Amino acid sequence: MSKCVVVDTTKSPWARLRPVPVNAVKLRDSFWGNRIEVLRKVTIPTQYEELEGTGRIENFRKVARGDKDIIWRIADDSDVYKWVEAAAFTLAYEYDSNIERMLEEVVDAISSAQDEDGYLFTYYAYDKRSRWKDLIRMHELYCAGHLFQAAIAYYRATGRDKLLNTAIRLADHIADVFGPDGQSGAPGHPEIEMALVEMYRQTGREKYLELARFFLDQRGKGLLGGDIVLIDHKPFRELDSMVGHAVRAIYLCCGATDIYLETGDESLYNTLERLWRSMMKRMYITGGVGSRYHGEAFGEDYELPNVRAYAETCAAVANVMWNWRMLMVTAEARFTDVIETVIYNGALSGISLDGRHYFYVNPLADRGRHSRQEWFRCACCPPNIARLLASLPGYFYSTSSKGIWIHLYASSTSTIELNGRIVELTQETKYPWEGRVKLKVNPEKTDTFSLFIRIPEWCEEVKIIVEKKEFKRKVLPGSYLKIERDWHYGDTIEVLMSMKPTLIVSHPHVLGNTDRVAIKRGPIVYCLEHIDNPDFDVWDIVIPPDIQLKEEFRSELLNGIVVVRGRAFVIDSKRWENRLYLPLKNMPLELRKVEFRAIPYYAWANREPGPMIVWLRSIVPKNNP
Amino acid sequence: MSKCVVVDTTKSPWARLRPVPVNAVKLRDSFWGNRIEVLRKVTIPTQYEELEGTGRIENFRKVARGDKDIIWRIADDSDVYKWVEAAAFTLAYEYDSNIERMLEEVVDAISSAQDEDGYLFTYYAYDKRSRWKDLIRMHELYCAGHLFQAAIAYYRATGRDKLLNTAIRLADHIADVFGPDGQSGAPGHPEIEMALVEMYRQTGREKYLELARFFLDQRGKGLLGGDIVLIDHKPFRELDSMVGHAVRAIYLCCGATDIYLETGDESLYNTLERLWRSMMKRMYITGGVGSRYHGEAFGEDYELPNVRAYAETCAAVANVMWNWRMLMVTAEARFTDVIETVIYNGALSGISLDGRHYFYVNPLADRGRHSRQEWFRCACCPPNIARLLASLPGYFYSTSSKGIWIHLYASSTSTIELNGRIVELTQETKYPWEGRVKLKVNPEKTDTFSLFIRIPEWCEEVKIIVEKKEFKRKVLPGSYLKIERDWHYGDTIEVLMSMKPTLIVSHPHVLGNTDRVAIKRGPIVYCLEHIDNPDFDVWDIVIPPDIQLKEEFRSELLNGIVVVRGRAFVIDSKRWENRLYLPLKNMPLELRKVEFRAIPYYAWANREPGPMIVWLRSIVPKNNP
Repeated sequence: MSKCVVVDTTKSPWARLRPVPVNAVKLRDSFWGNRIEVLRKVTIPTQYEELEGTGRIENFRKVARGDKDIIWRIADDSDVYKWVEAAAFTLAYEYDSNIERMLEEVVDAISSAQDEDGYLFTYYAYDKRSRWKDLIRMHELYCAGHLFQAAIAYYRATGRDKLLNTAIRLADHIADVFGPDGQSGAPGHPEIEMALVEMYRQTGREKYLELARFFLDQRGKGLLGGDIVLIDHKPFRELDSMVGHAVRAIYLCCGATDIYLETGDESLYNTLERLWRSMMKRMYITGGVGSRYHGEAFGEDYELPNVRAYAETCAAVANVMWNWRMLMVTAEARFTDVIETVIYNGALSGISLDGRHYFYVNPLADRGRHSRQEWFRCACCPPNIARLLASLPGYFYSTSSKGIWIHLYASSTSTIELNGRIVELTQETKYPWEGRVKLKVNPEKTDTFSLFIRIPEWCEEVKIIVEKKEFKRKVLPGSYLKIERDWHYGDTIEVLMSMKPTLIVSHPHVLGNTDRVAIKRGPIVYCLEHIDNPDFDVWDIVIPPDIQLKEEFRSELLNGIVVVRGRAFVIDSKRWENRLYLPLKNMPLELRKVEFRAIPYYAWANREPGPMIVWLRSIVPKNNP
Repeated sequence: MSKCVVVDTTKSPWARLRPVPVNAVKLRDSFWGNRIEVLRKVTIPTQYEELEGTGRIENFRKVARGDKDIIWRIADDSDVYKWVEAAAFTLAYEYDSNIERMLEEVVDAISSAQDEDGYLFTYYAYDKRSRWKDLIRMHELYCAGHLFQAAIAYYRATGRDKLLNTAIRLADHIADVFGPDGQSGAPGHPEIEMALVEMYRQTGREKYLELARFFLDQRGKGLLGGDIVLIDHKPFRELDSMVGHAVRAIYLCCGATDIYLETGDESLYNTLERLWRSMMKRMYITGGVGSRYHGEAFGEDYELPNVRAYAETCAAVANVMWNWRMLMVTAEARFTDVIETVIYNGALSGISLDGRHYFYVNPLADRGRHSRQEWFRCACCPPNIARLLASLPGYFYSTSSKGIWIHLYASSTSTIELNGRIVELTQETKYPWEGRVKLKVNPEKTDTFSLFIRIPEWCEEVKIIVEKKEFKRKVLPGSYLKIERDWHYGDTIEVLMSMKPTLIVSHPHVLGNTDRVAIKRGPIVYCLEHIDNPDFDVWDIVIPPDIQLKEEFRSELLNGIVVVRGRAFVIDSKRWENRLYLPLKNMPLELRKVEFRAIPYYAWANREPGPMIVWLRSIVPKNNP
């Protein structure tokens, strides 16, 4: 079995966890299993068509044959690379001759466009003098990073080294150009840092790791104009909050974490820990980040507008990637909690149920104006969500010398290598709709090791039954529960997580969420959409804090979801007519009783357009004056 | 007496109101009187120094002597022009030899830079081939418009025609270049439209009016790339909401209103009415508009973030300018209500009490990070707020054939020409701190005419006493009360407007203001600033809806203000520690009683930095479930 892992920390000296490959996990559930099937059957092929239809793949072929009629857009190459990465993971997970054929076609096109000196960036194919000059605007290094990731994934999925050799030639070229003895400069859009570290892991060539470190250390010297949006206002180690373009900032943190995993540079980890804590004050309940349209950037602490949430799909994807690396460093469940939040909410909202429509921006309230698109002129998000979903099986487990770490839950059968032996691990569960998970452990032969079972932070009550005996140690939400024993073939563990709809409130300084509640059930954030609540404007709902919420699985609705229902009130905002401000005493406030239905946030905008809202007006609790 | 009017509707066929010059009104109050004195003594001279210090004035001199070492910024000329306009109004209002000398110096510099063909824009002084090519980005037409306004104000203030002749030469040049028989194109930044109409009013040359109409009608044809931010996505008459860059959109509406005033084109007025109603759903309680940083643009209806309010000072100034023109068309008090709201709040916040520090952006809540600056690289706001304040005496009154219209209140003595006769009108009042206004009417000789007394929209109770007899007709807030009689020298009217601190709420779809109240007293919007409330975080306050608000005039504080005090509660947001989201049942909610002090919003950030907030958390009224 070849090992198609997402981040190869197998030999990383500062990693506590080692990867389990994408192809070691077979998802058999209707939630992720279905998503990945749609990905293979619909998303990967339709994205391929878009990439061809918009000339992005043809650009490479044109360069190969000297045709100068290129379509000039600075990030187009990267869209193709991200698709290759997604397709490679998909192929590793389940063989598909159609995807294999498309991949070969695209890999050939890419490789054919490489210059003799290793340079590869279609935009400057015919303009040698402009290369590596405008690192602020030009996405040369960014595209190179995505090529490296694509090449590694393709190699790990297929064993074919054609694209990897292309990547190596480009990496060597970049290493020749940049460095302490060469050109200075930092990429305007980070990405290459983590890709170079993975190239180092894949090839063992230390110069790639050194180059990654070089690029990281070039920041904050004004080479990018000192721009805060480009995270050039300070050296990386002096950053004290998450600022700037969200995708760039998080990709940079991914690279820094990867460098830490290989070098153990404590000053890097301290910075990362600080930045992560900062980000935890700038993250939507959905796990979306980067609240500002302006600069696609992080806002200040608690700056989390709902209608004008930017929360780019790419930033959510990046959020998963960074938290995964922090998890590899620490084996701490707080990072997995973020990963789970993002994959079920802020990232998943970026792709439609039919697998061919995408959100770039992910608002938390809307009047029905946002709708998913088939493609974007700046098409970073569609292949990014595709590569996250395609690699998701690789996020389910890790190993350490002590045992197996269970991060995520879904019905599945996995084949995990632990200290040279194989352990088959199956999950039976209706997660995320139910909190009961039945694990079956089938070691090759009876063996002593630990299972580290993640207890999600949302889970306030949990019962663990090991071989029909309740496990008596205190179990903390937001932690890994260690169960060490002799494991025999067929041993079972039941994890019973109580999963109830819960009203969530925000820190008081999230001014837009004052006296508002969100409904969360397990890892899933809910919203109200007009189509399920046609008798009132969902923006007008008032949820009493003592509401009794009911839940109901509806298999026919939105590919099968648990709907949350309840009795609440609505004001009638129409009674305000054209007035924007009124004296409090003149405010129209008659309330009407209604029954409402809430659906998972990720599933909104899959039917007809209409108002949607996550944070619902509430009344203040009784202990107020 | 020369007539230095702001907008000369004296002969405009579709104007219901005619202007009263800036120099006909002498403000003797401590509010505006003091502001205008600071303007003359501090603001105008220090802005002159900034304009010299940053090379903006020198640019013109450099062009005159062929020095090519220009400082290249596309809007720099306009900053100088706006200053000239402000200085001219200031000089008209009260003679000041220092300002006169500066003005002559600057006017000489500007005029000397004009090209032989009339062209005048320092940026392209040496680049004839680039002129009038890039109307999207280049501010040639915008700067020309500001020159016209400056030249007219200078002429009206001094009778000197040097700058007016420069303006005429430039206007003629533009009329030669553009038009049905010439080049097509619309200005990327509207401004010239209203300036051309004023040039028409000043010179009588119809081609300027035609050119203004031409520029307006060029929009929506894709000449500006169809960009919604540039208001080029639709023809003007098809616009159905206020969108795009706020200053540009409102300046465009100013121009369209001016064109209507001269032409009576009903389709224009219908559009303006529709856009004004749209803007009334997109305006802060302060009168600030343009809520988005992104594109400095209008948001959707009810999109009014508080911390991330953009609400550019220039947009507030523009808002006054447009509403003034709409008032000239209609004589309807709803426009004056907006003017009053803006001048006392969202515009006035743009300049410090010391008259030399400015806000570009005017947030309604802040953590203490925003502070007024002495100048900006893009320095549109400082001279814009200066020209508004300098011209403010011209906004106090209008006339019609029926009588005198009183728009604003302040202790003052004015000399108003009505149907060829002089009426002296004095106001005695402590407005905006008290609602009692004593008017004295001194006609040249006994005469029959009407006084139209504005009853502000905020005023729920009003008593009018004419010559010691109560006026018995029903008085509606937000209207002009007509009092027609024979007026004798020394007749008095007392207007007694009840002025109490009031809690205001927002339309429910302003999601960020849910269960929040603002304190308003008369025309003044209040805020809480940390320095007055050092014992708690002002963001944590909870105002009970039945609060008793107390008021107290404090002459020593912030140049004299009414402070509003009350007893309220605070939550302790620190108890949330690093947590951003919590289940409702775990929310820390102990309340502590506090006494708070609120100050006028316009006066914030004049002392030490700290948190500030306008919309205060409240609890919902008792008629909630």
